[in-house]
Amino acid sequence: MFLIKEITARRSLIVSEVLGLIDTDIHNEVRNQEQILPYLAEVWHRQWLQAGTSIGMPFYSPVGVLRRDAVPEDGGTPGSDPSMIIKEHMDLYGFDYGILNWGRAIEMSIHPDPDYANVVVSAHNDLLADVWLKTDPRFRGSIVINHSDPEATAKEINRMAGHPGFVQVIMCSAARLPFGQRYYHPIYEAAERNGLPVAIHPGTEGRGISGAPTPSGYPTRYMEWHNILPTNYMTHVNSLVCEGVFEKFPKLKFVGIEGGISWLPHLMWRMDKNYKAMRASAPWLKRLPSEYIKEHFYFTTQPIEEPGNKQYLEQIIEMSGMEDNIMYSSDYPHWDFDNPKVVMASFSKRIRSKIMAENAMNLYKLKKEPLEAFE
Amino acid sequence: MFLIKEITARRSLIVSEVLGLIDTDIHNEVRNQEQILPYLAEVWHRQWLQAGTSIGMPFYSPVGVLRRDAVPEDGGTPGSDPSMIIKEHMDLYGFDYGILNWGRAIEMSIHPDPDYANVVVSAHNDLLADVWLKTDPRFRGSIVINHSDPEATAKEINRMAGHPGFVQVIMCSAARLPFGQRYYHPIYEAAERNGLPVAIHPGTEGRGISGAPTPSGYPTRYMEWHNILPTNYMTHVNSLVCEGVFEKFPKLKFVGIEGGISWLPHLMWRMDKNYKAMRASAPWLKRLPSEYIKEHFYFTTQPIEEPGNKQYLEQIIEMSGMEDNIMYSSDYPHWDFDNPKVVMASFSKRIRSKIMAENAMNLYKLKKEPLEAFE
Repeated sequence: MFLIKEITARRSLIVSEVLGLIDTDIHNEVRNQEQILPYLAEVWHRQWLQAGTSIGMPFYSPVGVLRRDAVPEDGGTPGSDPSMIIKEHMDLYGFDYGILNWGRAIEMSIHPDPDYANVVVSAHNDLLADVWLKTDPRFRGSIVINHSDPEATAKEINRMAGHPGFVQVIMCSAARLPFGQRYYHPIYEAAERNGLPVAIHPGTEGRGISGAPTPSGYPTRYMEWHNILPTNYMTHVNSLVCEGVFEKFPKLKFVGIEGGISWLPHLMWRMDKNYKAMRASAPWLKRLPSEYIKEHFYFTTQPIEEPGNKQYLEQIIEMSGMEDNIMYSSDYPHWDFDNPKVVMASFSKRIRSKIMAENAMNLYKLKKEPLEAFE
Repeated sequence: MFLIKEITARRSLIVSEVLGLIDTDIHNEVRNQEQILPYLAEVWHRQWLQAGTSIGMPFYSPVGVLRRDAVPEDGGTPGSDPSMIIKEHMDLYGFDYGILNWGRAIEMSIHPDPDYANVVVSAHNDLLADVWLKTDPRFRGSIVINHSDPEATAKEINRMAGHPGFVQVIMCSAARLPFGQRYYHPIYEAAERNGLPVAIHPGTEGRGISGAPTPSGYPTRYMEWHNILPTNYMTHVNSLVCEGVFEKFPKLKFVGIEGGISWLPHLMWRMDKNYKAMRASAPWLKRLPSEYIKEHFYFTTQPIEEPGNKQYLEQIIEMSGMEDNIMYSSDYPHWDFDNPKVVMASFSKRIRSKIMAENAMNLYKLKKEPLEAFE
C-alpha cells in the first residue's frame, strides 16, 4: 500500500497521510444506447433503444443529479467515458482502487418486467468486464442484479463471479418486500458461496414497481424525498437481522451505499431493547441485533453527515462501534459528490486510514498493489 | 412546584431530586363499550357495540400490549379504572400531572369511515371531560381527533378547546399523506389558534387505511415492525418542516410521543446538508431545517433508548440541541412502560428536572400547584 505522499506526484490534492485511498462508489454509465446492443439478444433491441433503463422519475432534482463538469468533452452522459474518470477522478485524487457500480442499471430491479430487467443487467455486467475492467488496473466492478427475480439473479451471480474484477453484487434499495424475507434468500446463497458482499444503493424509492417511499405515502419535493431515503435502509437492516439472514448465511456481508451512518446508534439501541423483551418471536437469533449489524454491515460515507461540531460524527461512530465498517465513497459523477480531502477531515487521524482505505481493502480483499488490468 | 422529597411521603419510589414529575403519556380506556353510548347518537350504537375502535391488528405482540398488573380488580381493560391509575400510578410515583391520551380511540384516524371516526373521537372527548377530568386535579387531557377529516377535526378542536383541562390535540402517526401536506392545514390552524400543541402517537402503522409501514412493504413480526416505527416520525418531521408548516403557523408546536429521540441528529444533519444545496425548492423556508425542529418539536421519552454507555444518550441530546424539548412519558399501562426512576437515571442532574417536569410545564402551561379537579 503506498503512502499518499507518493500519490501526490499524481496530482493528488490529498495532503494528509492515509494508507491508501479507495472509492467504493463510482457511477459509470454506458457511452450510448448502442454500446449495449452486442450484449443483448436481438429480440430486446427495440425496447432497449426506445426505453433503456427508464423506470420513471417522479422525484426530480432541481439541480439535476449529475456534475456538470463531468460531461465528456465530446458530449454524452457523465461517467460514460473511462478515460475521463481515470484522468479527472482516479488520477486527480490518487485513488488506489475505484469500485464501478453503474448508474441507471442499478434501477432495473424495480422495472415491472423481470425478463427485461434480467437481460439488461446481464448486458451491463458483460460490458463492464469487456470494456471497463480492461481499461485500468485500479477499476473493480459490482455485479448489477435484478432483485425482483432471485432465482435468475443467483444464476447471474454464478455466471459473473468467476471474473476476479467483480468484488460485490449491487442492487437498488427500493423493493416490494423488506430484504430479510425468504423470497430473496437465493441471492444471498449465491453471494455468500462466491464470497461477494451484497451492496444496496438508494434513489429508486417510490419509483417503478416499488411502493410509496414513506409509511405515510408520497413526499412532495426531491429534497424532502432525499432527506428520508435512509429510512428504507433502516427497514432493510432491521429486516435482515430480525429474519435471521445472518444465521442462515453466516459469511454474508451487506454494504449500505449512500444511505448515511448517523442513524445507526438509534436503530441498534431500539432493536437491542426490543429484542430483550421479544426475543421469543425470533428464536433463531443468538446474539443482540446490534452484534449482527457490527459483524455483517458496511456503510459508505457519501453523503457524509456534516454536523456543526465535527466531533459529533466520530462520537456517532464510537456509539455504533462501526469504525471498521465505514468506507469512503465519492458518488462520482453525481451532484452531491464528496471530495476525499473534505471527508478525511471529518475523521481523526486514528480512524482516517480505516475509512479511506483499510476497511474496503479488507472487505473486498484488495491487494496493496493493483493487478494488471484484466484481459 | 414541589420537591420530590415531599412527594416521597406519597409512596413515591423516586429518590433523586427533581423539580416535579409529569407523565406526558398515560393511556386511559373506556370502562366498557356501554360507557360511550350516552355520548353517541343512537344511529351509531349498533356499530359501536359490535365494532368499537377495531381497525385490525396484523402486527400482534406475542406478549400483548398491556401490563398484566394493570387489570382492574373487578376485571376490564387496563387503564379503564380512574381510581386504579390514581393509586397505582399517579400516587405510587408521585406525579404532579398526568396527560390522558386514550388508547384505542387514537387509532380512529385510520378507520375507513370518516363519519364514524368523527363521532367516536367526539364521544371520547366528552367522556374524558365528564368523567376523567373531574376525578383528579392532576389529570389533563388530549383532544383525540380524526386526521382523515381535517375540516370536521378543526370544528372538534374548537368545540373542546374551551375546556381548560385539555392541553393538546392527539392523533395517530399512521396516515395516507405525510403530515406537512396542505390537506392537514385546517387542523393546524385550529390547534394554533387555540394554543394547543398537536401530538402524534405511533402503533397504527400498516393498519387500517394506512399504507405499508415501510418503503419496502410489510415487515413480518411485531418486533421488527416495532423497531422501525420511528421511520414514520422522521417522515412527518421532514414533511412538516419542508412544506413550510411552521412559517404558515409560526406558533404551532408538535409532540412526537413514543417514537424515540436518538434519530434526531441524523435527520437534522441530513436535512441541513440538503437544504444548503436545494433550498431553492423550498423558498418559504427562512432558516435551517434543524432550527425549525428545535423550535417546534417536542419528543417524549418512552421507550427510552438504553445504550450500553449511559453518556451516549445525553450526547445525543447535546447533538440535537433538544434538552428543552424532551419530556418524560411512562406509556402506562402498556407493556413497555418506563419507570420514572429508571428514566431519570439516564440523564445527568443538570437536565433531569427539565426532562422529568419543566419542559412539559412550559409546553402545556401547567401551574406549579394543580387546580381543583374540573367541574
